[in-house]
Amino acid sequence: MKKLINKPEDVVVEELQGVALAHPDLVKVFYDPTYVLRANAPIKGKVGLISGGGSGHEPMHGGFVGYGMLDAACPGAVFTSPTPDQMLEATKAVNGGAGVLHIVKNYTGDIMNFEMAAELARAEGIEVESVVTDDDVAVQDSLWTAGRRGVGSTVLAEKVCGAAAEQRRSLKEVADVCRKVKAWGRSMGMALTSCTVPHVGKPTFDLPEDEMEIGIGIHGEPGRTRMKLKTADEITEMLMEPVLNDLPYKAGEEVLLFVNGMGGTPPIELYIVYRKAHEIATKHGLKVVRNLVGPYITSLEMAGASITLLKMDDDLLKLWDAPVKTPGLRWGV
Amino acid sequence: MKKLINKPEDVVVEELQGVALAHPDLVKVFYDPTYVLRANAPIKGKVGLISGGGSGHEPMHGGFVGYGMLDAACPGAVFTSPTPDQMLEATKAVNGGAGVLHIVKNYTGDIMNFEMAAELARAEGIEVESVVTDDDVAVQDSLWTAGRRGVGSTVLAEKVCGAAAEQRRSLKEVADVCRKVKAWGRSMGMALTSCTVPHVGKPTFDLPEDEMEIGIGIHGEPGRTRMKLKTADEITEMLMEPVLNDLPYKAGEEVLLFVNGMGGTPPIELYIVYRKAHEIATKHGLKVVRNLVGPYITSLEMAGASITLLKMDDDLLKLWDAPVKTPGLRWGV
Repeated sequence: MKKLINKPEDVVVEELQGVALAHPDLVKVFYDPTYVLRANAPIKGKVGLISGGGSGHEPMHGGFVGYGMLDAACPGAVFTSPTPDQMLEATKAVNGGAGVLHIVKNYTGDIMNFEMAAELARAEGIEVESVVTDDDVAVQDSLWTAGRRGVGSTVLAEKVCGAAAEQRRSLKEVADVCRKVKAWGRSMGMALTSCTVPHVGKPTFDLPEDEMEIGIGIHGEPGRTRMKLKTADEITEMLMEPVLNDLPYKAGEEVLLFVNGMGGTPPIELYIVYRKAHEIATKHGLKVVRNLVGPYITSLEMAGASITLLKMDDDLLKLWDAPVKTPGLRWGV
Repeated sequence: MKKLINKPEDVVVEELQGVALAHPDLVKVFYDPTYVLRANAPIKGKVGLISGGGSGHEPMHGGFVGYGMLDAACPGAVFTSPTPDQMLEATKAVNGGAGVLHIVKNYTGDIMNFEMAAELARAEGIEVESVVTDDDVAVQDSLWTAGRRGVGSTVLAEKVCGAAAEQRRSLKEVADVCRKVKAWGRSMGMALTSCTVPHVGKPTFDLPEDEMEIGIGIHGEPGRTRMKLKTADEITEMLMEPVLNDLPYKAGEEVLLFVNGMGGTPPIELYIVYRKAHEIATKHGLKVVRNLVGPYITSLEMAGASITLLKMDDDLLKLWDAPVKTPGLRWGV
């Protein structure tokens, strides 16, 4: 295992210490229980936004805490759900009196623990809504998931819901934005290589030198199929086709096209995929009005990419364009 | 070779087509000869800023074209210098009448070709200054370089010089900012793995599973030493010690600390390195007043990191904080 780490069991804590040292203007980090809090939280009258999940997907979620996005993130161990006490403490810490939205990726552990935390927070008088993202069209049910997995749409939901909360929309209104992203976003990913969880010390799965896996999950969960490596254009078609046909996206609609890197794939390759995905979307009659290209929801050092399409309307466009300033995503502030 | 590409010889052109499709608000791409131009260039009365070099280091340089940074970037083939005609056309395209600054990383091919382009541009009546970055303290002379290699400081130079040019400083003044970064910036890098140039098809060098290379260049050029893999803290010490002692940086000085990923190393590891680098700088008596953590000058999918220290003064601080909006680096606009 070749990694820039000290002891495998210290990876998350030491990473968070680095985040705290690098971004004191944006975030504060607490360790018992562990959560990343927006530096100026709680903000009176603003809906608090929380997400969380296993570590190893950075910059998601801790890198998305700050102005215009999340108020707190709860990181678990690598690829392991955080615990209810983390989510409860974070919920209390971001509560500015307007309620708290939990944005939860559809993994059984995350759902169960966020539900428990929501119950406990409600018992303390905090209004909590939860929206579960489940945009991955690759497989129905999976390792650790009943139903579809929550992947790339989560990043987009955190961005637009964060903007809606900054506008002081109500909890129901911010949750409605999240439900719209859940309804209108679809994703699919693929891997060229596996990745190694530090405390495991060996690759999560084996993938022969001439093979790839289509439809893989962000923890290396099995996808749809393994096959011989193909060209970027062929791979992009294999990802776009099921995404386009699932909602389905109709000619004339406006979309955001998000090409996400799984961690080990450099920008040069992501833009080659973007080029083809843009062409396919355009041929399908869609108008690509916004985009995001880069590693935003990753699987450690896994090589590969995922594609997310999100249907846009005027409100989502404005929320997407609103300023954001976080360690991992920033513009306009 | 596992990459999301089509034909190896099309990698750079197809990447640039993707960049053009994704960022038409920020850049235009020309292909004969090849350069990435700021969408609203030339800007009358503003010094034009150009850099360039082999591809494979993205987001540098094409990802840094836009408001507050470069006016054009000239990408060569992967790890191969661009040609003088690219630089000449880019120089003419960004010339707004206030002269053009070439920011050149110290590699023999880059230097030679930028010099030729500068001569040709001057012959056409364009005032051109060149500053060569050479911040890598690892080795004196190297494969493709006489003297020190230009690495991480180049990113910082492009940011602060871009801000200075936006303020409508003169060519000499913008070049002076670049010379200050050259004088005050020092870097050193290391690799855990090699990388594969697409048109070569096999790794640039071999590095056994339990070894790393300290002082490596951004094209995989040999560094100072190969040794058994050590902990992140030990590696960070090995990078920081020669950087700190080279200038040398003195107690009480303010610095920017830049922890750069080589491409294949995820954020979780970069922040572990940042944590230790910040601690070492602080123990040395330095005040870390700004930072940058992420993959900004990369070597394709190489795993590893580099550390750059830049001494700061009030002017550099203001220039660093100024808004920037490019595909690869953006804040405040």
